[in-house]
Amino acid sequence: MGKFLTKREDNYSQWYNELVIKADLAENSAVRGCMVIKPYGYAIWEKMQAALDQMFKDTGHVNAYFPLFIPKSFFSKEAAHVEGFAKECAVVTHYRLRNTADGKGIEVDPDAKLEEELIVRPTSETIIWNTYKNWIQSYRDLPILCNQWANVVRWEMRTRLFLRTAEFLWQEGHTAHATEEEAVAETVQMINVYSDFAENFMAMPVIKGHKTANERFAGALDTYTIEALMQDGKALQSGTSHFLGQNFAKAFDVQFANKEGKLQHVWATSWGVSTRLMGALVMAHSDDNGLVLPPKLAPYQVVIVPIYKGDEQYAKVKEAGNKIKEELKDFGITVKFDDRDTHKPGWKFAEYELKGVPIRIALGARDLENGTVEVARRDTLEKNTYPQENIAKVVKNLLNDIQENIYNKALNYRKEHTFSANNWDEFVDYLDNKGGFVYAHWDGTTETELAIKDKTKATIRCIPIDNPLEDGKCILTGKPSTQKVLFAKSY
Amino acid sequence: MGKFLTKREDNYSQWYNELVIKADLAENSAVRGCMVIKPYGYAIWEKMQAALDQMFKDTGHVNAYFPLFIPKSFFSKEAAHVEGFAKECAVVTHYRLRNTADGKGIEVDPDAKLEEELIVRPTSETIIWNTYKNWIQSYRDLPILCNQWANVVRWEMRTRLFLRTAEFLWQEGHTAHATEEEAVAETVQMINVYSDFAENFMAMPVIKGHKTANERFAGALDTYTIEALMQDGKALQSGTSHFLGQNFAKAFDVQFANKEGKLQHVWATSWGVSTRLMGALVMAHSDDNGLVLPPKLAPYQVVIVPIYKGDEQYAKVKEAGNKIKEELKDFGITVKFDDRDTHKPGWKFAEYELKGVPIRIALGARDLENGTVEVARRDTLEKNTYPQENIAKVVKNLLNDIQENIYNKALNYRKEHTFSANNWDEFVDYLDNKGGFVYAHWDGTTETELAIKDKTKATIRCIPIDNPLEDGKCILTGKPSTQKVLFAKSY
Repeated sequence: MGKFLTKREDNYSQWYNELVIKADLAENSAVRGCMVIKPYGYAIWEKMQAALDQMFKDTGHVNAYFPLFIPKSFFSKEAAHVEGFAKECAVVTHYRLRNTADGKGIEVDPDAKLEEELIVRPTSETIIWNTYKNWIQSYRDLPILCNQWANVVRWEMRTRLFLRTAEFLWQEGHTAHATEEEAVAETVQMINVYSDFAENFMAMPVIKGHKTANERFAGALDTYTIEALMQDGKALQSGTSHFLGQNFAKAFDVQFANKEGKLQHVWATSWGVSTRLMGALVMAHSDDNGLVLPPKLAPYQVVIVPIYKGDEQYAKVKEAGNKIKEELKDFGITVKFDDRDTHKPGWKFAEYELKGVPIRIALGARDLENGTVEVARRDTLEKNTYPQENIAKVVKNLLNDIQENIYNKALNYRKEHTFSANNWDEFVDYLDNKGGFVYAHWDGTTETELAIKDKTKATIRCIPIDNPLEDGKCILTGKPSTQKVLFAKSY
Repeated sequence: MGKFLTKREDNYSQWYNELVIKADLAENSAVRGCMVIKPYGYAIWEKMQAALDQMFKDTGHVNAYFPLFIPKSFFSKEAAHVEGFAKECAVVTHYRLRNTADGKGIEVDPDAKLEEELIVRPTSETIIWNTYKNWIQSYRDLPILCNQWANVVRWEMRTRLFLRTAEFLWQEGHTAHATEEEAVAETVQMINVYSDFAENFMAMPVIKGHKTANERFAGALDTYTIEALMQDGKALQSGTSHFLGQNFAKAFDVQFANKEGKLQHVWATSWGVSTRLMGALVMAHSDDNGLVLPPKLAPYQVVIVPIYKGDEQYAKVKEAGNKIKEELKDFGITVKFDDRDTHKPGWKFAEYELKGVPIRIALGARDLENGTVEVARRDTLEKNTYPQENIAKVVKNLLNDIQENIYNKALNYRKEHTFSANNWDEFVDYLDNKGGFVYAHWDGTTETELAIKDKTKATIRCIPIDNPLEDGKCILTGKPSTQKVLFAKSY
């Protein structure tokens, strides 16, 4: 399997596209830009969802569900939002089909035209704030801490599986607060949740920071982001948390009576991560042999492959394999015992390497005699022989070790690909010849930001939180600057 | 709260509509026919999802995700399916909006018309079988046992929260098999899963059976259903499982090479339950005071309400309440301690009664002195005083008792409202004056079925599985019949 995969250094982009399909994560569908998430890919997404959902609930949030469709007029209510979101959308104009005159097909019934077109949600601020208007009268109704797991649609012209698709799955949190302080604290809390999730579950180090005004969410006063570095030296925005101020409350006239009975506009946040994280996960860790999955998100952490000749050996190996499987399960390890006799061990080895199963246990006739198993780690490809006795404990420790190791590997990669540029030539050299994150001074204007992007294709990924202040000169204009910000080429 | 609810006997339909809204389960949205599922309602749906999802996985199924949109032409490929599903649908015709000439609003960009219209999925057989075509070549690729949790849209003219909405949430299983026997066995297995879920989690007895040809899913050779009886004597179809034969395999040209290398069409099933189950749950058990939730699906099984005067008592009651809360949690019981000082105990009692929390524990100053608590059951409204010691065990047993009791109550209601009619007058009398399920002979023709519906509004809910055979005469036509089938008026 692995050998049919393009190598990263030959063509990183092609490597990614092939891997997503060959590892059975997702594929393109008959509908332009919409993907099919295959069972193996969806199982990873389910693990992501479960971990995130628990983190949301632990921080006091509840789930709810809001309509798929948004009346067109809602988008016009918040001035910045309409510019950012109401353009490339799927528009529902009719609600009925009819048979064609020749009886051979179906066509849109022109009599079933909607009075007002409906937009398939690209994000749900507008419909949710229109709903919150009825939920909020008094300070006693606040805060509202809702999250929604949903599909959204943005009509992208150039799509790539997981990274940019017309339809994608995500969660969107939408909270309402009595005070600015509380809303800002919520915004920060959620970017920290995302950062914890990325680092502790995805084993993917991220840099937290503010987006520049130019890169902010449409309608936000401040956007926090987590930025991860992929193995081709490009950044991937992996999650955002927005402080929306009172913009949506004003647009949808959502006010509450405070303790003194005075009417005030509500403060808002929204925050989301999507199936794009699947793309990040693939690109952060995988290698030329296939996926490398962190044990905490792997659909199964261990696969057991029997090696045998003839029915008698098969029966014995099956018995021993099942015993080990049960022992691992009792230790809380997820395990698959692939005892199919339709595929050879070599085929299975390649298959599970491609699919990134963290640990492979091979069990042959000699192992039965010796009371041993062969254990292979996916991250390092190391193989070792262990006694069958206490194997669950060995595997448990190995899984922890793998989770830690792939995080450290990604962190080291990032360290090796993070630079600090002191002048324009250095800046361009790092971007063009090394790749990665480049810290550099910037004069704080959108004009300069766009000019740098125009010349280098690099954008400001974020102004990192707790960025050290230092006097300097803008890399492009030479104007005074108080801090270096984080540049990179990006997805 | 409860006293503001219309009584069931005065107006059952209005009672339902009010209850769904007042108990914070769902509400109508700004988009006609689309509902907002509120956090409390969604928490119940999440419990349903978790239980069903586990049952699906325990029977070998995996989750996947397929596109929201289906090309219009796909619906024309299966003749029966197009008649049943491709009519009242949301149709996407454009993919872009633009600013209006006056700059004040947005409008559909006429240049962004899709070549082929996309239908928002009303069900996914077509797009999924178009996908399976690429997944299936050999018998080794079978069976495919996929489930999808998704939103679907059917443009209903008259909608009611949960029972019939334009957009609803559901799961749809789509399986592919090498043989007819295996597909039929899958169809039966899944209706049994639904039946188990309805009875053991929802505490709602159901009758399993076959739909008549007239009531079958569009494209199915056989449709199994579970039918539940609501408290107004009307039936509610609560889940269906379809044996699709080779219809979709033929429509989408899905063939596999069997062990002998011969190409054959694949056999299919599909099966689903939806947020309609939320409506069934409300209607099956609730009373004039509000919701009655089965403990297995209640967002929290126990609420603790403190009763106190002054800060000193408040502090003591809070301490004791938190202790009880932790004890219950350690027993695996979900519990909310409502220690808010913004609402009075009487308000809280009414609120949690309305919301159907199975057990309410009240804790006052006298309880602290006596080492007791007052425990109220929502199902019977009985109150008893118990020692605080070992309270978790008492509550655990009570929860089991409540789960059983509401099932038995619903079963008794059904027994009392199930009749067997031997002639037309009896049949009409049962339907009009008693309400409920009526067994009666039927000559097996669609013509008679429709005539009966026309005269009585009753439909054949199902031909129960393992129905006893007996010779008789059709209730309407007097023609020979071999079994009584199950009639009722229905939702």
